[in-house]
This record gives sequence, C-alpha cells and structure tokens, in this order.
Amino acid sequence: MRSPIEFRSDNAVGVAPEILASIGEANEGGELGYGGDRWTTMLTERVREVFGHATARIFPVPTGTAANALALSAMTPPWGAILCHPDAHIITHEGGASSLFSGGAVMTAVPGEGSRIGSEQLRASLEAVTWGDPHESQPAVLSLTQPTERGTVYEVADIAELSRAAAEFGLTTHVDGARLANAIARLGCEPADVTWKAGALAVTLGATKNGGMSTDAIVSFDDSLSDELVYRTKRAGHVPSKMRFQSVQLLAYLADDLWLRLAAAANQSAQRLYEGLRSLDVDVRDEPEANIMFMRLDNEVIDRLEELDLMFYRIAPGVIRVVTSFKTTDAEVDETLVRFRTALSG
Amino acid sequence: MRSPIEFRSDNAVGVAPEILASIGEANEGGELGYGGDRWTTMLTERVREVFGHATARIFPVPTGTAANALALSAMTPPWGAILCHPDAHIITHEGGASSLFSGGAVMTAVPGEGSRIGSEQLRASLEAVTWGDPHESQPAVLSLTQPTERGTVYEVADIAELSRAAAEFGLTTHVDGARLANAIARLGCEPADVTWKAGALAVTLGATKNGGMSTDAIVSFDDSLSDELVYRTKRAGHVPSKMRFQSVQLLAYLADDLWLRLAAAANQSAQRLYEGLRSLDVDVRDEPEANIMFMRLDNEVIDRLEELDLMFYRIAPGVIRVVTSFKTTDAEVDETLVRFRTALSG
Amino acid sequence: MRSPIEFRSDNAVGVAPEILASIGEANEGGELGYGGDRWTTMLTERVREVFGHATARIFPVPTGTAANALALSAMTPPWGAILCHPDAHIITHEGGASSLFSGGAVMTAVPGEGSRIGSEQLRASLEAVTWGDPHESQPAVLSLTQPTERGTVYEVADIAELSRAAAEFGLTTHVDGARLANAIARLGCEPADVTWKAGALAVTLGATKNGGMSTDAIVSFDDSLSDELVYRTKRAGHVPSKMRFQSVQLLAYLADDLWLRLAAAANQSAQRLYEGLRSLDVDVRDEPEANIMFMRLDNEVIDRLEELDLMFYRIAPGVIRVVTSFKTTDAEVDETLVRFRTALSG
Amino acid sequence: MRSPIEFRSDNAVGVAPEILASIGEANEGGELGYGGDRWTTMLTERVREVFGHATARIFPVPTGTAANALALSAMTPPWGAILCHPDAHIITHEGGASSLFSGGAVMTAVPGEGSRIGSEQLRASLEAVTWGDPHESQPAVLSLTQPTERGTVYEVADIAELSRAAAEFGLTTHVDGARLANAIARLGCEPADVTWKAGALAVTLGATKNGGMSTDAIVSFDDSLSDELVYRTKRAGHVPSKMRFQSVQLLAYLADDLWLRLAAAANQSAQRLYEGLRSLDVDVRDEPEANIMFMRLDNEVIDRLEELDLMFYRIAPGVIRVVTSFKTTDAEVDETLVRFRTALSG
Repeated sequence: MRSPIEFRSDNAVGVAPEILASIGEANEGGELGYGGDRWTTMLTERVREVFGHATARIFPVPTGTAANALALSAMTPPWGAILCHPDAHIITHEGGASSLFSGGAVMTAVPGEGSRIGSEQLRASLEAVTWGDPHESQPAVLSLTQPTERGTVYEVADIAELSRAAAEFGLTTHVDGARLANAIARLGCEPADVTWKAGALAVTLGATKNGGMSTDAIVSFDDSLSDELVYRTKRAGHVPSKMRFQSVQLLAYLADDLWLRLAAAANQSAQRLYEGLRSLDVDVRDEPEANIMFMRLDNEVIDRLEELDLMFYRIAPGVIRVVTSFKTTDAEVDETLVRFRTALSG
Repeated sequence: MRSPIEFRSDNAVGVAPEILASIGEANEGGELGYGGDRWTTMLTERVREVFGHATARIFPVPTGTAANALALSAMTPPWGAILCHPDAHIITHEGGASSLFSGGAVMTAVPGEGSRIGSEQLRASLEAVTWGDPHESQPAVLSLTQPTERGTVYEVADIAELSRAAAEFGLTTHVDGARLANAIARLGCEPADVTWKAGALAVTLGATKNGGMSTDAIVSFDDSLSDELVYRTKRAGHVPSKMRFQSVQLLAYLADDLWLRLAAAANQSAQRLYEGLRSLDVDVRDEPEANIMFMRLDNEVIDRLEELDLMFYRIAPGVIRVVTSFKTTDAEVDETLVRFRTALSG
Repeated sequence: MRSPIEFRSDNAVGVAPEILASIGEANEGGELGYGGDRWTTMLTERVREVFGHATARIFPVPTGTAANALALSAMTPPWGAILCHPDAHIITHEGGASSLFSGGAVMTAVPGEGSRIGSEQLRASLEAVTWGDPHESQPAVLSLTQPTERGTVYEVADIAELSRAAAEFGLTTHVDGARLANAIARLGCEPADVTWKAGALAVTLGATKNGGMSTDAIVSFDDSLSDELVYRTKRAGHVPSKMRFQSVQLLAYLADDLWLRLAAAANQSAQRLYEGLRSLDVDVRDEPEANIMFMRLDNEVIDRLEELDLMFYRIAPGVIRVVTSFKTTDAEVDETLVRFRTALSG
Repeated sequence: MRSPIEFRSDNAVGVAPEILASIGEANEGGELGYGGDRWTTMLTERVREVFGHATARIFPVPTGTAANALALSAMTPPWGAILCHPDAHIITHEGGASSLFSGGAVMTAVPGEGSRIGSEQLRASLEAVTWGDPHESQPAVLSLTQPTERGTVYEVADIAELSRAAAEFGLTTHVDGARLANAIARLGCEPADVTWKAGALAVTLGATKNGGMSTDAIVSFDDSLSDELVYRTKRAGHVPSKMRFQSVQLLAYLADDLWLRLAAAANQSAQRLYEGLRSLDVDVRDEPEANIMFMRLDNEVIDRLEELDLMFYRIAPGVIRVVTSFKTTDAEVDETLVRFRTALSG
C-alpha cells in the first residue's frame, strides 16, 4: 500500500522533537505571567545573540498574520500606505489585518519579477507620490517577503538596496520572514545580514512552518517600535498569561542553529525534487531557492498524481504548488519521482 | 490685458446665484438642529421626486470623500473589499478614508478602458475570489465613478450590467457621483436610470463641483443602509447642528433642474473646446463625455499656455487636464482657442 | 398673539449678519481649493494675532464633534485613554467619535463639582494608573470643556493647574471650546490665557453656537500636531474643496472682537434672566457663568411654560435647560419673566 | 526551608497533566491547517454535547482578551456601547481591545454590589438612554463576568433576569467566562444553564487559568455570529495554521468533566482557606464563591506574609488578592494558615 506524501504546506507536518520537548520545561510554576517569566527573558538574550543586536526585542505571537500586521501597524500612521509586492501574503491572505490594526492604512502593490519587488519599480512608485499631499495615502513602510510567496529569495544586496531606496523617501523596512530560516539557510549568511544590517526595522520570525508548534514572533530592532508593540500586542489579545509556553519553543528553535538546520533540510529536499523533476522534463516555474516550487502539468497528470497519494495544492488549472518540509526525507523525494514518472507516462 | 481663464477644477469657480441666494432663506431661527428642520424635510421629499424613489433618503455632508467613505463603510463589513477602478478617486485621492470608516476594509482595483471598469474584468476578478475563505478580503461592494475621473461616462446599460454581475456574487453597488449631474446631462436619462434602477444602493451626489457652496450628499435607496448612516454620519462629525444651511443649497440645486442645467453648460463648453482643439490638431485623449479632458502637448507649448494665463493642472510631463465649469462661457472657450493657436505656433 | 421665545439651543437661532455677509466675499473664483485660498491664509494670520501665538494653525471643520474627535485622535495613541468629566460632550453626545478616529482609544471619566474636573480627583485618577502596564488603557490626554456643559466656567488658574497636573504624568491638554467665546467674555481674559498659556495644545473653537453658519474649527498650538491634522482632517472627509466659505466665516467671527461681543450679549441675557428668576424664587441650579442654566420646576409649571410658548429642553422630570443666544433681547428676557410669573402662579 | 506558596494567579501555575499529554496526540501530520483538522472537528462536537446546543461553534484563541474583544466586536455596531460592571476585565485590563476590534464602540459602566451588575441599575441605565439618537452611543450588548473579578458568582436566575432585561431593549448578552468552570462548579448547574439557556449569545470559555496551556476560546450559540467570527478571528491574526494544538487542549479540558473537576478543586481550596482565615479573624471581603478572595490586613502583616514566602498581589494599601488554583493542595492551605498565624502575631 502506498502511503501519502505531504507537499501541501510546511505547516501540515508536525513539530520538531526538540521543540516538542521544550514544552515540558516550561511547565513549572512560580513564574510571572505575560512575558515576565525567565524563559521569555532568556529568549530575549538569545535573540540578541543570534541577530547580533544589543537591543533587539522579541514578541511571540501565534501567527504570521499577527506578527506582520502588528509590526506594520506600528510602522505606519493610519493615513499611510504599506508598499509590498502584489503577491505578498499581507495583501492576498491576511484578510486586511494590517488595515485593521493600523487604523485604516492601505496597501499599495509594487511589482517585480519572481514575486520580488523590483528596484526600479520601487523607485518609480516612490517618485510618483505627491509627498505631503493628504489626498494621497503616503507610503510609510516597505514590506518584503523573504523568501517570497513564490519560493524565490532576495539576495542580501537586494534587500539593502530596496531598503536604502525606501529610506531616501522616509520609509522604514519590514521583512515578512514567515520562512526566514529557509532564506538564511539558502544564502548562507548571518541572520543580521538579511535583517537589520540590510535596513529592516522589524522582522516576522516564522517558526510554525519550520517545526514550531504554536508560535511565530516579531523581532524588533528599534526601541521606540518595541515600546509601542508592548501595547499593540496586548490590546490585540496577543499577550497570553502563559507566554512561557511560546517562549520555550522559540528558545529551542534558535538553539544550536536548529531553525537553520530544519530549513536547510527542507531546502535540500526541494532541490533534490527539482532536479529529479527536471530530468523528467516537468515544467517547474523557477528553480527553488527555498522550499516551495510551482509547476505546470496537464490536468490529467495532476489527477493521476493525486490518485497516487501525492498531497499538494492546485493553484490554478494546470498549476500545482509543492512545498517540502523539514520532515521530507530523501526516500520520500525519490518515491515522489517514481510516482511522477508513472503519472506522466499516463 | 489678458484675463486668466480657469480650467483647473470645477470647484475653483464660485457658487451658482440660485444656491447663494438660498442661504438667506435658511437664516430664520426656530428650527430644530441636526436635520430636524423643515428644509431638510423638504429636501428629502424633493430627492424622492427627483429620483422617483419613495423611500430614498439624503444625508448632506461637506465633501465627496465623506459621502463616498461613509456610504461605503455601511456597505462592506470590516473584512470586506471594495472593488473599484485603479483610477478611482476613492483609491487615489481620499487618503484611505474608506478604510478608516469601514474599520479596515481594503480596496481592490479592477481595470478597464477609459477609467471604466470592464465587464469582463469584473467577472474575472469576482471569479478568482475564494469565497468564504477568511484569508482573502471578501469583495462586498462595487464602486463606480460616474462620470469617471477621466471624463468618460458609463452608459445606463453598462451600470446595470456591472451591477448585475456584482449582485450575482453578493455585492451591492455604489456610485461615486461627484459629477453625477454631468453624466445625467450627457446621457439625457432620468436620475433613476443611472442610479437605483441600474442597481445602485447608494450614490454620492456631488454639488460642490457644479455650483454648490459647502455640501455634497449621500443618497441612499435602502432603508437599512439609511438607518445605519444616521449613526455613521454623526460619529464622523458630519451632522452639523445647522444642517439647514446645507439642505437649502441642495434644495436649490435640485429645483427646476438647476443641477442638470449647470452641468449641461459645463459639458457643452467642454465639447465646444474639444472641437476647436481637434481642428488645431491637439492630441486630446478622449472626446469628452462630461466636462473633463486630458491632452498631450509639448512641454514648451504647455509653458506658453501658462504664460498666456490659461489655468489648468499638469498631470504628467506633457499631459495637462482641462476642466470646464458651469461658469465657462463660449467667449472664454473661443479666447482659449486663440491662445492655443498662439502657443502652438510657438 | 404671543410669539415663541427660543431657549432650546444657541444653535437654533440664525447667523450673525457680519458672518452672513462674509459669504458673498468668498464667492470669487480663481482660488485654489482645499485651503489653498487667500481667505484661509488670512485666517491663519488672524488666529495667530488673536491667540498671540506665532505658529498656531487653524483647521475649519463643520462640527464641534469633528473638531474634538480629530484633535483628540492626534493627541492619544490608539491604546490611550482620554480623561474627561462624566458630563463631557465627548462622552455623552458624540456617538463615540473619539474612539473611531483614534483607532480605539477609550474615555475615562474624572468627576468634579459643577461639571468641572476637580484637581484632587484628577490627581487621584492619575495616581491610580499602573503606568506602563499594557493591560490598562494609558491616560494620554486631558479634555476640559470650557465653559462646561452645565454652564460653569473654569478660572484661568484652574485650567493651568489641571493642565500642569496632567503634564506631570505625561498628558497633554485639550479644550473643548464649543462655547469658548462665552468663557473668555465671562473671564475678561485674553484668548491665550485660557488656552495655550494655560497649557492647552489644541482647542475646539466653536462658532456655530455663537452666530456662525457652517463651521467650527480646531486651533492647534503645536507644530507636530498640526502636521498630523493635515492628514487626519482630509481622510475624515473634513477638507472641502471650497474651504474658503468656512474660512471667511471665521475671519468675520474673529474680526473686531465679534465673537466676544456676541458671546457677551448671550451671557448678559443669561445673567438678566437668572436674576429675574431668582426674584421669583425659581430653583436655578447654578448662577450662570456663561449662557446656559438649568432649573428645577414642578412638571405642571413646565407644561404651562411650554403652553406659554417658551422653548427649552426637558432634561429630566422636573428639570429644564435654558440657553440664551446672541440674539436674545432684553425684551425677550423680560417677557420670559412675565410668562414664568404666570406659569408659577398656576 | 520554607517553600513558596502560590496565590498570585491561577495562571502562574502549570498545566494539568491531561492537557499536557494531549499535545503529543496532535503531533501527527496529514491534517489541514487553520482548523480544518480532525481534532477541531471533534472539539466542535464535544462543545455541542457539553453545552447541549446543536449548532454551537467554538473558536480557540490564545487569550481571554482576544475571546472577549472578538466576540463583543461581532455583537455591537461600531457606534454601540457595551454595558459592563466598572470592575469588568474588559474595561480595566484589556487595553481597549474591544474598542479596537469593534471599530470604536465604547464601554459603559453599570454598577452593582460585589462586582455584579445590579438588575435595577441595569434597568435604570437602559431607561436613561435616548434610543435612536445618534448623539448617544447606543447600548448593544451586555457583558457579564462569571464568576466576577471579585470572586462572586451570578446565580443562574440572575443571568437570566439581566439578560431578559437587556433583550427588552434589543441588547444581546455576552459572558466573560475566563473562569467559567469555577462558576459552574460552584453552582452545580449544567453549562447550558449559565450560558445560552440564560440568554447568552456568546461566551468566553477560559482554560488558561484552570490548567490549560495556550488557549482559551469563544463559544458562540448563534449562527450569524459564528459566521462573522470566521472572518474576525482570522484578520486579527487569531487563526493559527496548527490550530490543532489548541483544539486538543480543549478536547482534553472538556473530556470527563476535567474542567469542572479542576475548578472544583480550586474552589474547595479557596473555601478551606477562607474558613481558616475567618477563624483567625482575618477581614476577608466576601466569602469566596469561586477561587478568588480579597482581604484587608495591616501593611506590616502583609510584609511579613511576603517574608514568609506567601505569593499574592497587593491590590491597594492594606488589601491583598489571593487566588487558589487546581494545584493548590490541602497541605498548602494548612501551611498557609500557619504562616498567617505567625504573621498576625507579629
């Protein structure tokens, strides 16, 4: 009997053992609530080490949507605009959360190849603004998804350049890093390189898609932003009394490079799968730079792949999305290629 | 000496004499505030006659932005999306007012020729939605600008068709009629034809750009919408105690077809100017269907036109916008053409 | 036949002749919209003279609710609290406008005698706050109504003391001056004394209740607040293209002390009425310090007063509110006293 | 050596073993995200059984603040008022969350003895409203905390009566049940009796304070409310992809009456402690009806209690709050009484 192989989402698989084990640790009492516990204190220290930033602060929140929208709401006035790619999760999949939390800020799409905002398009967009005119929503923050929703990765220099252009016009930069570890693993850089050293004021640090259980986080590199997030997280219902159960997960996640190891495994599986598919002449849209890839197939082939117990999402007629995870094994990849061969031979 | 000729905006000119005269009428006391006065009561009756709708209600507000955003906020849930053309005033020139008043609803652009939403593009946009998925902002209202920001006019059948398509997917229809009279004058139809009979639930009734002084209005054709607007207008600071001074203006505006006569005059001037410019081979973007037109000219010509005391807005390098008003005279149009000839012969 | 005498509200009467006349002046064209006209420029200069403040700015808006809520929204973060008296108009009569515009700030009542916030009660309230605790809405702004909703007036020293106490805790001060002129006329002070010199950052300058037609205004004494109000007023639909028709009213209002003369007349009528009523042993709640007074009467007496064509509001069983206006004449007051005598004698 | 005894909060202690164990169960993959998993499906079934309601739905959210504010935001229009006791958590400790999520609704305090809203006070408050007047925030929902912040419990008949009075005026009823299990355990009633059968449309079902780890929940008894919460929870960032890790906790919580057994243990400890303290003549404010009590002591006694390693919160000078939990043992209670005796004997 064939067992199903999971490529629907990296959040469909379970929790990394190290993270699951951490939960037990936090189950001692005697700790203050709402982040006043020792694990949250330790987590702050760890984040500062990992990101090489002496005053960084971390705000554990349960979802990437909360992390994005709360950080953005503190980075734009209510009359501002958030610039992002038309494929950005904050536009397409967060139900207007950023507009809610910001008190009515809008999102303005800036295009670019491969779901990456283009440098020229960004400049063109910024130069077209009538600055200071209250009729126009005033761009206040640039949000970059790293890696992008399409599985591509911004180079360190790309982020720095975009962020610099934004800063010239008075914008700050936010990074939606729902899969940040996958980008860092790909680039082989330091966490600082792709975040604050490249100009980002705040980052969504995803964990759920990479072996976590019930937490993502905002990492802020700016004191006044951090001070504001204390209030914004609370009044959004995002400061649990037992925050320690989120903090221990993030402590485990950031310990001994676990986050980067899990991400590297997912990336490597995607690469292995991509190479096998190319040898089968499958039309994969981009070589995966992280752990996501899209491919174009006849609808009958897609049907047969589903019958063969491969699990993935249909994005459009003739297009599927495949996401590997830290749990994807080489054996699963190889078995997947066998099933593709079967399906393709019809 | 040359006198300047005004084509910057139809709100740059003064107030129609009939409307100015009305102000004095409202200056008797003994009336209740906040719309409880007899002029506001009469205005409601007049609106019902003019629009041929037995339960229509009117909410005078000082700006088109207020009228649009307040009506839209009552037509979409906070998690909804407002569909409109990328050129729509509500996206480009209202500073996010609709997101503010709706509690965070977003605007989604639907393209189309001549700043008109295209029927196929609307269907394609609606069919691409994952209905019922809370990740996606759910389209709740279609907003059409009539005439458009570009000076084009939707045919009665166009509005009906777009509105019907929207209704199939559960959306209601809003009309931004900042220059509604100009469209009605152009189409030669009844006010009902281009509003509620074509499927619109609420309309922004512009007056300021067409001879009014200090008021536009929302006209609502739906009782529950009207009931909600009672609260929404008040808490937005848009219910003045001396509302009667707005209501009398609108009474005068709607009396004896004044609004349509003023608009027809502006339209006619635009047409006369257009024909003259065509005979001078000026590259006018569209034949004006209302009182706005855009034209492409060498920048030196534009400079000379300004030196010749023509007043207009530069929209982009080599592009100017010309707006006629109810005050524009045939003599002004003819003199304008003389100045164009001078500038073009450079 | 008896003619009705109006004591319902100072906004039930008409417009002062000087203000009505001003409208005609603004009816020349050739001016930029949205406050870019020469009357609005002149108004700014006049406000700076009148308030003796070199950088004050004025934002004409159609209602006191808009003025209060927009100013307050720029003076508190969304997680803040606005301290005000339980009788304050912003709590009781503005439909939550301040919560809307601020993105969810709350109002916290601080009691005191005669609808004035008490100094000790303010300190007690501020000292009870857990500052920096995101669970608690953090007081950010103190709002004082001058004169109060009850017709009492804060002394200059009172405002200064309350404002100083607020500042110690990091709050700024706002003055709801829907009837500011009545307070200044009463106190015989300079406009500066009761506003910025007493610590107020922004003031609602009422005109509608004191002979105006269609405008009140925010006066801001702080540059960064002013900069923010440019955006906040626009996106609330409170920046009309023909703002000049509001600005000329305020120009006339502030010219030659008109505002203070109108207010002094209303105050004087209230005083004359009060003295007459006292001689009839009517139980007036407070000696009026401005133009409002409340009195306790048997319900049958109240019924008879209405039959005698006195117009006033019933506030509670056995309690009525009487408001004089700039139009109230000595003859009306004297005739009112005659009717009271009739009603009281049953 | 003395070990500390924890009475600061019921969220300072750890997680019940049954709930901790449940986490492992959810760690299988192959499940859809965002509540599309089988545990969440099972949870819905369990909630319907436990509450005896065929269409109830449950929305797991990480905090009571999120549960309260999201439910309330769906029960009031933005211009509405939420009636609650001045001691209610939603006023005092949620940083204005309900105003944020509702788009600016306000909270209006209704007093009553023992932190319970009084029936007469509720009627008086509702009768004083000018219904339909947009100047006044219109009461739309009644929120009751059960048990109250003071540790008192509403009788089933109390809730039904308050809810009925509210319904007469068009309000629906919400129950903040952060410690709902403690109230049910105290009353010995069915969950239905104190919720929907008593008129509540939605309930905050607390778990965190009663042995849970990282979830509370909204239970909705109304289909249209539930439909709306699908969107409201998502756009607030409160729908995690791995919701299953919250659902399993709630499944365990509601299984075999675990929630009621944990609560009964906490209540019983409070009762045992109360009786002991009474025999020591300690001035306890109310006999505890749940697991919270307040007491008045000399400040020197309070200091000594702290030196004796009793952990509690100082609420005001001379007043402390003591909260027992499911983990409090009889031995701890008895030892606590020994320490009290020591502290009292100075």
